[in-house]
Amino acid sequence: MKGGNFQNRIYLDNAATSFPKPQAVIQKTLMGLYNYSGNPGRGGHSVSKDASRAIFSMRLAAADFFQTSREENVIVTGNTTHALNIALKSILRQGQRVLCSNIEHNAVRRVLLCLEKTRDIKIFTFDALLDDSAVLQSIEDGIKRKKASVVVLPHASNICSRILPLEKIGKICRENGACLVVDGAQSAGHVPIFFDDWGIDALCISGHKGLFAPAGIGLLIVSEKFKELEKGSDALITGGAGIDSESPEMPEVYPEHLEAGTLSAPLAMGLEAGIRLVSSIGIKKIAEKEILLGNLAKQIISSRKEAVIYRPDLEGGIVSFNLRGISPERAAEYFDSFGICLRAGLHCAPTAHQSIGSFLEFGGSLRLSAGYFNTPCDIQRFGQVLLSMPLK
Amino acid sequence: MKGGNFQNRIYLDNAATSFPKPQAVIQKTLMGLYNYSGNPGRGGHSVSKDASRAIFSMRLAAADFFQTSREENVIVTGNTTHALNIALKSILRQGQRVLCSNIEHNAVRRVLLCLEKTRDIKIFTFDALLDDSAVLQSIEDGIKRKKASVVVLPHASNICSRILPLEKIGKICRENGACLVVDGAQSAGHVPIFFDDWGIDALCISGHKGLFAPAGIGLLIVSEKFKELEKGSDALITGGAGIDSESPEMPEVYPEHLEAGTLSAPLAMGLEAGIRLVSSIGIKKIAEKEILLGNLAKQIISSRKEAVIYRPDLEGGIVSFNLRGISPERAAEYFDSFGICLRAGLHCAPTAHQSIGSFLEFGGSLRLSAGYFNTPCDIQRFGQVLLSMPLK
Repeated sequence: MKGGNFQNRIYLDNAATSFPKPQAVIQKTLMGLYNYSGNPGRGGHSVSKDASRAIFSMRLAAADFFQTSREENVIVTGNTTHALNIALKSILRQGQRVLCSNIEHNAVRRVLLCLEKTRDIKIFTFDALLDDSAVLQSIEDGIKRKKASVVVLPHASNICSRILPLEKIGKICRENGACLVVDGAQSAGHVPIFFDDWGIDALCISGHKGLFAPAGIGLLIVSEKFKELEKGSDALITGGAGIDSESPEMPEVYPEHLEAGTLSAPLAMGLEAGIRLVSSIGIKKIAEKEILLGNLAKQIISSRKEAVIYRPDLEGGIVSFNLRGISPERAAEYFDSFGICLRAGLHCAPTAHQSIGSFLEFGGSLRLSAGYFNTPCDIQRFGQVLLSMPLK
Repeated sequence: MKGGNFQNRIYLDNAATSFPKPQAVIQKTLMGLYNYSGNPGRGGHSVSKDASRAIFSMRLAAADFFQTSREENVIVTGNTTHALNIALKSILRQGQRVLCSNIEHNAVRRVLLCLEKTRDIKIFTFDALLDDSAVLQSIEDGIKRKKASVVVLPHASNICSRILPLEKIGKICRENGACLVVDGAQSAGHVPIFFDDWGIDALCISGHKGLFAPAGIGLLIVSEKFKELEKGSDALITGGAGIDSESPEMPEVYPEHLEAGTLSAPLAMGLEAGIRLVSSIGIKKIAEKEILLGNLAKQIISSRKEAVIYRPDLEGGIVSFNLRGISPERAAEYFDSFGICLRAGLHCAPTAHQSIGSFLEFGGSLRLSAGYFNTPCDIQRFGQVLLSMPLK
């Protein structure tokens, strides 16, 4: 259990990142490191072109995976946070109204709070933990009555297995003229996403979670409407883009418009391999496995009378819970001493913990997040340690 | 020469990125992909801690390499462009005056032009192609007479082998109270940098050029003075940082203050391996080799009477030139057809091409950039193709 040897460890922190990385992803990234490490889009020679083609190939795979027809609207970022910062800071203008959920990650919350201060945007919140029909009603109200022109929400929560009805939300946004920005960090690779059909305007995802890619690459996928709204805004990051070098501003064409600086072809190849792996397994099968593991975990956890499970009715791989008599941090340390990896605390989502009710009593929760490569045995071993845990 | 096979290709585009990547870097990155792919700083369990330690180890190596005593001021970014955007947008306030060179890359130029528009900053320029004493005088004038409070410049140019006298520039900035931001994209790994002793306030570098790392990671190293100046500014990218989750703003402590979103431990390990490789070879030896190769290239190029070499007096691995009778792009294609990789055009630095005189007549140049792993044979083969090139 030392020096990074992951043998004998049970990894149940897939909502933070998938681990270990699948062989197919590592091999493809390795091939990229060896053969596709030129600078993409910088120079017409073969080494640069090879790297460019690798990134283009990933864009095509991602466009296909997320069901959008325009691969040029697939923008490479460093992670979901980077994508969300670009998306929100590009389209939220002075004094605009935005509707977000009560379970936002800090990657959305902190951006909105910053824009509230600097651009005087008005933030309205809906309760994402209500049932679907109430959520849809709140979103419609937010747009119609509170005049929110931008809706931002997590497709799936990072602290419980809440998945929002994105198709229907997209319909409401489209019908009422609102721009829909989706934090897909926890849904990409876990739940199908139909970008064009559902009317999403900006989808922000990372490669390293549900798509099994190495950390260091994320995507921002945008709609034509987003591009219209974005026009004239100050790019978050400006610099060289390999084309239109003379211009004082970033190129107008996408994806270069939002891609300043050197991109990583090896990481793009790893991401493409991850996307292809998810496709070959099938998202339905992944979701079923995660539900199975999550249900098993909840069953075991609830057998301890000191346990509090948050929203046990929601099905999926993420289970947040606490044990009366121990702080989540101490409990995680106990698990870790047996090689069981769970994340404790606020998971960068303090308002989400306020919303599910774990904040005041425990200051957060223990989060078990099972992934496709976990097994029921992993959950059983987690359970053995859980049942052995001494509580006050 | 197809499908990314770099055998039989002569790669002379090291200023864009180093290629191929050294075995030591690939192996360390691979080890990271297998064993250190947890989410650093997110969770107290062993998989996350392993990743955190990998990144901390890289910070220590980088702090040692660039000679700064505070590893917490070594901030991980995606590339140099990202680092420069953070640095400049953090410290340049409304109406401030900035002094830059006439050979800036678009990663500086476009950021300054954006801030000119949005924050009404005043941009002054000095001629970086004059001799050192004139450059120093211009910088002192820029600070004293034009009241520039920030000086930003490339330590080394990306289109010729101009290296600015950074130690003396740092002294002038320090003595006159200006903040010194350095674009170290082309100098890191090629020239020694003494961050603390030279009085640099922000050093922006990428891993994938002179440090032989995989693309996707860069660094921003900042001084205590920078941190003071940055206080109260809006972070370029906000989001989760793994600590202080409750706060509406990014944590105050460094490096987390400027590191929102998941970092990549495998890339950090690749970068550390690259730094250690450069250290073990020795920068002096690297610089000597690059000068040797650059001189050889200039000697061969000048044997064609149609050749125009820009600033052939400057010694180093980067040689910009043109051939009368062919555009740089067409010439690069010709080289590429023989497996020789050179980058043609503006190299994301249009003002630099205006400054060296290649812009009006040729719209850019052919750039040969030799790296430590090139050999005199590579340059000879480049020369054979050059001498065979049909010109009008």
